[in-house]
Amino acid sequence: MRAAVIHAPRDIRIETVPDPELREPTDALVKVTHACICGSDLWAYQGVAARTAGQRIGHEFTAVVVETGSEVTTLKPGDPVVAPFVWSDGTCVYCMENLQTSCVNGGFWGEPGSDGGQGQFVRVPYADGTLVKLPSGLDDDTMVKILALSDVMCTGHHAAVTSGVRKGSTVAVVGDGAVGLCGVLAAKRLGAERIISLGRHEARTAIARRFGATDVVPERGQDAVDAVRDMTNGEGAHAVIEAVGTEQSMRTAISIARDGGAVGFVGVPHSGSRGVDIRQMFNRNVALTGGVAPARAYLPELLSDVLAGRLDPSPVFDMRVGLDGVPQGYAAMDERTALKVLVLP
Amino acid sequence: MRAAVIHAPRDIRIETVPDPELREPTDALVKVTHACICGSDLWAYQGVAARTAGQRIGHEFTAVVVETGSEVTTLKPGDPVVAPFVWSDGTCVYCMENLQTSCVNGGFWGEPGSDGGQGQFVRVPYADGTLVKLPSGLDDDTMVKILALSDVMCTGHHAAVTSGVRKGSTVAVVGDGAVGLCGVLAAKRLGAERIISLGRHEARTAIARRFGATDVVPERGQDAVDAVRDMTNGEGAHAVIEAVGTEQSMRTAISIARDGGAVGFVGVPHSGSRGVDIRQMFNRNVALTGGVAPARAYLPELLSDVLAGRLDPSPVFDMRVGLDGVPQGYAAMDERTALKVLVLP
Repeated sequence: MRAAVIHAPRDIRIETVPDPELREPTDALVKVTHACICGSDLWAYQGVAARTAGQRIGHEFTAVVVETGSEVTTLKPGDPVVAPFVWSDGTCVYCMENLQTSCVNGGFWGEPGSDGGQGQFVRVPYADGTLVKLPSGLDDDTMVKILALSDVMCTGHHAAVTSGVRKGSTVAVVGDGAVGLCGVLAAKRLGAERIISLGRHEARTAIARRFGATDVVPERGQDAVDAVRDMTNGEGAHAVIEAVGTEQSMRTAISIARDGGAVGFVGVPHSGSRGVDIRQMFNRNVALTGGVAPARAYLPELLSDVLAGRLDPSPVFDMRVGLDGVPQGYAAMDERTALKVLVLP
Repeated sequence: MRAAVIHAPRDIRIETVPDPELREPTDALVKVTHACICGSDLWAYQGVAARTAGQRIGHEFTAVVVETGSEVTTLKPGDPVVAPFVWSDGTCVYCMENLQTSCVNGGFWGEPGSDGGQGQFVRVPYADGTLVKLPSGLDDDTMVKILALSDVMCTGHHAAVTSGVRKGSTVAVVGDGAVGLCGVLAAKRLGAERIISLGRHEARTAIARRFGATDVVPERGQDAVDAVRDMTNGEGAHAVIEAVGTEQSMRTAISIARDGGAVGFVGVPHSGSRGVDIRQMFNRNVALTGGVAPARAYLPELLSDVLAGRLDPSPVFDMRVGLDGVPQGYAAMDERTALKVLVLP
């Protein structure tokens, strides 16, 4: 089959690789129908996150089941499915608690020895636990909406849930990437009254407004803090979604949280803890929550909203490529000419 | 009057200072009956926390009202009271939300221009908001129990509440100082099933066991992490109370939290954020909660338990001095020959 392979920073190629096969009786083999490129893939692309030359890449996909192992009971060939960005056995103590990202048998697509989402086929470990079955016959538009539930929409939702967004909350969202935008959408869905989007890229903040942002703050650093405090009676936001992962974004997020509030951080942290202003957290009782989102836990609920026409995160996709176009897709996201690239293998 | 004054690190003297007087109509003047020395006072004593020469010190006290300003409505001369470690107006938006430590008119005893608890009299700003009235005629034993609610018991309780301790929880408490021990007591009170106390000072861990600790871990660093994981099926504790405030204690606290759990930190942080392992927090969804405890919010509930004989944090006091003995009390706590010193002015 053909799949995206990362050889070195900024060197992603589409290559012919061995066809995946069932290895365990709990595996399923699936044919990818829709995949995409994630902001966190860019960390690998840019060389900030280390990868072994030859690793696969991509962790968001919808697919059709091709073959199932003998112990797979909930899926059969032909079933359309969506995969969360980690696999999980669905039975361990953490899966039982809906923290599938801590599954004792879990793993990430693209880690050495596993397939990535940006390819034609994927061997799915623990298929019963991992995959969420979809209705048959969904149109392409709906599949694209569902694809966003693989990661970014569930991740934005996780930040909103863990930071305590509720009806009437004032929410600030640091970052106008796909996760930040989905955080806006999640906050709106949870009943936030005021949603302040911190971002300066106009095409993106336009989506933020479409998703429910009531205010946009293009400033950064102390200017951004001042702007948010000015518009919240000096208090800051009850809940802050940190969707970037840099020292500055974390510092800003903590600084714009209201006393007694929380920052839900879902931007993969690449600057250590330098932006974590612990003294401010202590003095003002600002909690730091979030982490890698257990998308599998949120998928049924969010899927139900998508299928009912109540939720549409698909505007985050603004470029569409075939598998051969994946390297161009990375370049476009790296250059910020694309927000999020849809891949049709 | 006579009061403790800090002139420089390790230079605390009992001096004659001006008698406090009412300044605002919302003030009360109180005569201190019981005070004590806090682990956080030691940061000032040791020079780690800066103080201006001549500042008063001490922030935990019970007292009797001597005089009230014209706008004080809930207190009258002769009323016994307990003070939380910050004053608060009781009416601002944060006070209304029970986050009195963020009161827009709040402040800390001993800050420049204010009295400290280690003295004969204290001018109390916003007396109606700040002070909690006690029944008359309580005996000395009961007053000492109540004194612990000024700070350490409410602070341990805050860590337990914000880290999510509930019935059946496994809780780990980092630190065997007075706050850590009160954290054990708070966890027990909230229904924790297993309480692991991390400390190596036998007189203190004995109190931890008396307060409800089921296990004691004397190791530090990675050895402590291994020990806690060994005794929790590799998982760690649902809730961790961090009651020290150093880089190592924070790192240990995060490392022994169960995936999806939380660290409630109430040790005043003096090492910046270096111990905050953000990557581990992200990967394992460990939240960092807590901060300066709104003792005023918890006082009524905990006081009710003390008065009913259900709560007794007084074993944290193991040395008793008069006002002239305060410098010796600091020295004893600094040398760790005393756990917490009671002051009878």
